[in-house]
Amino acid sequence: MKLGKTLAVPVSVALTIAVVAPSLSQELPPIFPGVTTLGERTIPAPVGLSPEMLEVVKERQIPPFIPGPETTEAWLEFQALFDVAGEKLGRAAAAHNGASYEVTEIAGVRTYVVTPNEINERWGDRVFIHTHGGAWVFGGGDSALREAVWMASGLGVKVVSVDYRRPPLHPFPAAIDDAVVVWQEVTQNQDASKTALFGTSAGGNIALATTLKLKAMGAPLPGAVFAGTPATDVENVSDTWHTMAGLDPLGAREEGSMIAGTIEQYAGNADLSDPLLSPVNGDLVGFPPTILISGTRDLLLSDTVRMHRALRKSGVEADLHVYDGQVHGDYMQNLLRPVPEAADAQRELYEFFDAHLE
Amino acid sequence: MKLGKTLAVPVSVALTIAVVAPSLSQELPPIFPGVTTLGERTIPAPVGLSPEMLEVVKERQIPPFIPGPETTEAWLEFQALFDVAGEKLGRAAAAHNGASYEVTEIAGVRTYVVTPNEINERWGDRVFIHTHGGAWVFGGGDSALREAVWMASGLGVKVVSVDYRRPPLHPFPAAIDDAVVVWQEVTQNQDASKTALFGTSAGGNIALATTLKLKAMGAPLPGAVFAGTPATDVENVSDTWHTMAGLDPLGAREEGSMIAGTIEQYAGNADLSDPLLSPVNGDLVGFPPTILISGTRDLLLSDTVRMHRALRKSGVEADLHVYDGQVHGDYMQNLLRPVPEAADAQRELYEFFDAHLE
Repeated sequence: MKLGKTLAVPVSVALTIAVVAPSLSQELPPIFPGVTTLGERTIPAPVGLSPEMLEVVKERQIPPFIPGPETTEAWLEFQALFDVAGEKLGRAAAAHNGASYEVTEIAGVRTYVVTPNEINERWGDRVFIHTHGGAWVFGGGDSALREAVWMASGLGVKVVSVDYRRPPLHPFPAAIDDAVVVWQEVTQNQDASKTALFGTSAGGNIALATTLKLKAMGAPLPGAVFAGTPATDVENVSDTWHTMAGLDPLGAREEGSMIAGTIEQYAGNADLSDPLLSPVNGDLVGFPPTILISGTRDLLLSDTVRMHRALRKSGVEADLHVYDGQVHGDYMQNLLRPVPEAADAQRELYEFFDAHLE
Repeated sequence: MKLGKTLAVPVSVALTIAVVAPSLSQELPPIFPGVTTLGERTIPAPVGLSPEMLEVVKERQIPPFIPGPETTEAWLEFQALFDVAGEKLGRAAAAHNGASYEVTEIAGVRTYVVTPNEINERWGDRVFIHTHGGAWVFGGGDSALREAVWMASGLGVKVVSVDYRRPPLHPFPAAIDDAVVVWQEVTQNQDASKTALFGTSAGGNIALATTLKLKAMGAPLPGAVFAGTPATDVENVSDTWHTMAGLDPLGAREEGSMIAGTIEQYAGNADLSDPLLSPVNGDLVGFPPTILISGTRDLLLSDTVRMHRALRKSGVEADLHVYDGQVHGDYMQNLLRPVPEAADAQRELYEFFDAHLE
């Protein structure tokens, strides 16, 4: 904690202001103009978690700083390396949860049609369209099964996952274009109001952007949207990217970092404030009901709550759920083993979609 | 960032696990069993705030460690010192917002009846019962007008604020007992379903506990409850008490600290896990619809989201709103000057109570 020497007022007064009277703070001179230096600190494991979730926290690895690749070839190698592990996990998730899947083309776009072991009988006529996560660059192919299976098996619903074109070869707006044409094709034979759109992380960003694009096109909109810990402002580095650095293994969004690089690869030469890149800037009036999930240790908590506020300010029915002690994407931790908090997130999603899909 | 020497796996694999495949993390040995050491860091001001809220952040003072008083006499002196500033601000808030108030006794308890400049015509028959904040020990007398006026003037509704008995002379459950008898008296002539109960911080704790107490008594329950950044687990130190230390001026809940002392003064010899002290442990089935507000820099964000999850798990209609970059109680920053985020919080409260009060 850094304290300047300008603190001439008695401690008791400072304390009063701090604890009891925040609105009086203008009576003291600022010690730092909005920038805070925090000293070294030790953070224990969060309290109140289930034993299963506590295990996840205890097993957590925080990787060191990862620089972004510098050439297109290096990005392609990196991408392939990443996707090997993701694809293996995707197939394991399908097998473990008894979900089947079919790879097919819809409107010329490669898609995965995922069918759970058991379809919820009330939802036989629902379809969920999925845009996978993985920082725009990663998470394609069988990797997408992780999230698609989590939703399909968790809620008992058919999922169509869009294996959208990705950077470095296919930057923005290729992913959105692919999602839009799949959406249009699926909703030719299916009420849009019975159809959901969802994604996590970069996939949440693409799901929100795709909905904005459909809205701008005057196309039928999803009955409801789920954006899990979505990137919603790629122009600015939102607050929890700083405050949660070191607690969330995703890695800080610093100059030269892999994560910052993925945004550059995706955005290309586009304006980062474009609402299709930064949906928090979008015209959200008339947006479908939307559910958002994050965690208190999530680097994208700020992006998530800012989107929630932007939706609410535009009069959109939007629900926010924040899980204590969870980092980016932790709500899917029950993909291969039981984690009560993750099952609880599936219950929230089920209730939300059950209420909002026509 | 602390990395042990057990990191024998290639960085690319660790990274894959971190970014793409959280569920695979069990394949690596833990580096630290749930405890994270964070190095010194500099946190810039949050992005995406209104200019007015950014000013608040820039003016923010983080006080040094404040030890708790050690004798009852010292607590009483501290309390009086605190309340001088709070009472002054309370009266300023009433004057600035054109609210009038009357000090009266209801069921033998000192109360403030606050009437706004203008009553919302649809809400002429509503009453909001208020239990003020101030760490249980502080915030009494005219201080309570800060929150009471904020609600009364912001929503256009009559507020009855309970000037409950406080520690060090009157520990738990005196505050709850006072709130219960005021509630019972008011709802003799007033439908409980048209009556709300609300509070911020320790006042949120007391509002939640009072509702649990009424539920256990079989008394009519509030039509809806607002718990703003409430203390909900006084037994354990929830995660954001650690992660947000140094960013929120409330001050860390460490051994020997003033804040830890207030909990001890309030709880006395009671079991800290008692749901009337730690409402997150309560039997919440049948709890009234509840709205909770916090901020991403709030030391009580964890307490708030844990309560939200506990309510949702019990099937309660509960809404969560989290403002980016805000600390404990920041949602009331428009008490004396315009702050759009705070006006937005009042709008959310208005919509919630309008939907849920009979």
